Amino acid sequence: MAPIRIGFIGLSAGQSWAAWAHITYLKDTSKYSIVALCNTSVEAAQAAIKAHGLPETTKAYDSPQALADDPNVELVVCSVKVPHHYATIMPSLKAGKDIFCEWPLAKNVAEAEELISVAKSKGVRTVVGLQACQSPFVKKVKQLVESGKIGKVLSVTFVGNSGFSGLKEPDYAEYCNYQENGANMLTIYSMHAMEGLLYSLGEISSFNSIIDIKRPEVQIVDGKGAVVKTITRTAHDQFLLQGHLESGALLSYHMRGGAAFAGNEGLIWRIYGETGEIQVTASGTYLQAGHEDMTIRLQDHTTGETTKVEPDEDDLSKLPLFTQNVGRVYEAFADKRTDGYKDWSYALLRHKLVEEIYQRDAAGKQETAAAYTKA
Amino acid sequence: MAPIRIGFIGLSAGQSWAAWAHITYLKDTSKYSIVALCNTSVEAAQAAIKAHGLPETTKAYDSPQALADDPNVELVVCSVKVPHHYATIMPSLKAGKDIFCEWPLAKNVAEAEELISVAKSKGVRTVVGLQACQSPFVKKVKQLVESGKIGKVLSVTFVGNSGFSGLKEPDYAEYCNYQENGANMLTIYSMHAMEGLLYSLGEISSFNSIIDIKRPEVQIVDGKGAVVKTITRTAHDQFLLQGHLESGALLSYHMRGGAAFAGNEGLIWRIYGETGEIQVTASGTYLQAGHEDMTIRLQDHTTGETTKVEPDEDDLSKLPLFTQNVGRVYEAFADKRTDGYKDWSYALLRHKLVEEIYQRDAAGKQETAAAYTKA
Repeated sequence: MAPIRIGFIGLSAGQSWAAWAHITYLKDTSKYSIVALCNTSVEAAQAAIKAHGLPETTKAYDSPQALADDPNVELVVCSVKVPHHYATIMPSLKAGKDIFCEWPLAKNVAEAEELISVAKSKGVRTVVGLQACQSPFVKKVKQLVESGKIGKVLSVTFVGNSGFSGLKEPDYAEYCNYQENGANMLTIYSMHAMEGLLYSLGEISSFNSIIDIKRPEVQIVDGKGAVVKTITRTAHDQFLLQGHLESGALLSYHMRGGAAFAGNEGLIWRIYGETGEIQVTASGTYLQAGHEDMTIRLQDHTTGETTKVEPDEDDLSKLPLFTQNVGRVYEAFADKRTDGYKDWSYALLRHKLVEEIYQRDAAGKQETAAAYTKA
Repeated sequence: MAPIRIGFIGLSAGQSWAAWAHITYLKDTSKYSIVALCNTSVEAAQAAIKAHGLPETTKAYDSPQALADDPNVELVVCSVKVPHHYATIMPSLKAGKDIFCEWPLAKNVAEAEELISVAKSKGVRTVVGLQACQSPFVKKVKQLVESGKIGKVLSVTFVGNSGFSGLKEPDYAEYCNYQENGANMLTIYSMHAMEGLLYSLGEISSFNSIIDIKRPEVQIVDGKGAVVKTITRTAHDQFLLQGHLESGALLSYHMRGGAAFAGNEGLIWRIYGETGEIQVTASGTYLQAGHEDMTIRLQDHTTGETTKVEPDEDDLSKLPLFTQNVGRVYEAFADKRTDGYKDWSYALLRHKLVEEIYQRDAAGKQETAAAYTKA
């Protein structure tokens, strides 16, 4: 089968998510070939082609429209900053090309709905970069839950931190501190983790949630760690949610910005069932990518026995962590296994959850003043 | 100084909280002497006197009124089941004796308020068994927070389980499964832990909370583990609360019934500050008593350095764990250090918190149906 011809938007010459997660996989597969790159300038695109060792025949473009006009491109992959997703993929969408766009798909629900509407009218295939469904760890948790090993699930606890959204932020992530850009702790880190959680345990049926900004003053630092400036954060760095899942299980979720306590204590995810419990721990909460120290343990509460459970391996398990699940999504898309990746309609479900959390916060009814301290 | 003469209500010949926590301390101190015991029968009281090696001169009573009528008794200590607190201490209260009553003081706010009203009219001194304020671990946490070592507190996470309120319950704790008795996971285990948390970090200013019963069917087992009968639990075995503390810090709290995951993972208590974080871990959530494996660690987020922090030692540090903090409360009461123990007015604060959680649950407004899953 001929490789799917990709036009890639947003690969720079330096290190980036696009380089680690996409290119590392794409360079080695026979299922895809990168035929064009679109960057902020033709020179920048050419530099990226050279830096990542792509074929000299790779076309270099400086505008999304130019890429859209290239009849050789079948699939457009978009890995630019979230606020630029809409503008950079719309021309190719209108040209009827399939699109693989990173999560979040758009800045907000309205933008996402417009993209989906055009995609439907053009009959193109879409992929969103919500790859927790391809994580061997998340898959294993889902499998354990569905196997009945811990009985009916009674409660779920998730505690973790995003790494980013602390006191100091690297300059390349400054835009993530402004809520209107749609790329922050709630939309990116919490939703990737929530996706892993809800994919394996089912959706939320009722809840309340709290978002807050506890570090409104943020120092922006350059690559050498020097403080460049101080900004005012408008994106939330605390997210709490509690409620019930559709299964009837309780959910307690808390993600905060900033560094984890110690090395291996960035994630505690507990699934408590009638007869046992699953605990996933790691140095961080990137369920969409995994962590080298991520561990699943299972306890049988009837015997007290605790066992470490290994996730299943596949052909991609030897690749660097960041590229594995993205690679698995590419594999599923190429093989037309629609249960192996999430499309834009599914992305809308997560966008709507984010929007609902914002709306509830704006309505101001998620917390009530404590009465017990009043005389 | 002459020892304070105690009339003790609710010490049996066998092992019990009264024996471990109270008698172990009282037998060795020169500040108190047990002069009378009140039990369900004079014979039972005599058996307890013998079993615990109390002086033969110790009076044995079979009714709270008889104890109240003994002019030699100065302080009544009550360690019976919560539903019997009111009836067993009221006669001594009316007789003008000081009272040390275990937590929860009463079955509900109404009962507690009546007890407090009588205590005030009689001008007696009262103590409630909320001894987390005397825990060296809790004190150390409070000290670390107030020292500014982690900067302003931004968020607090508490995750743990009560041990009890699982699938199987020992027959002696059957009464803890019926909500009307006022002795359950929310009132006892959650409030003792909450007391430690709020004592060191300040009260709750606004919140929402969820209580639920996820194991409504409970097997009651005898001392040999044989199932005696199956009952329907009406007391809650799940408690979630999220909100803000008066300091402005966020609070995420989840306690569930049943056994902890593995040995040392029964408690995770994180206090995240501007410049560092405190983490308390243990095999359980008994902040009022401590656990042999309880550990406080402090991380400086500016350097990444993590240190283990040891609680301070005192004369009681060598006693068994269960008796230490209760002993410290006795010491403070004898020395008239009113900042070293909690009186019944303070107990009312915690009773009101419990009542508010019940009332909010009854009002049914703590969760709202999720809209994001609807088309």
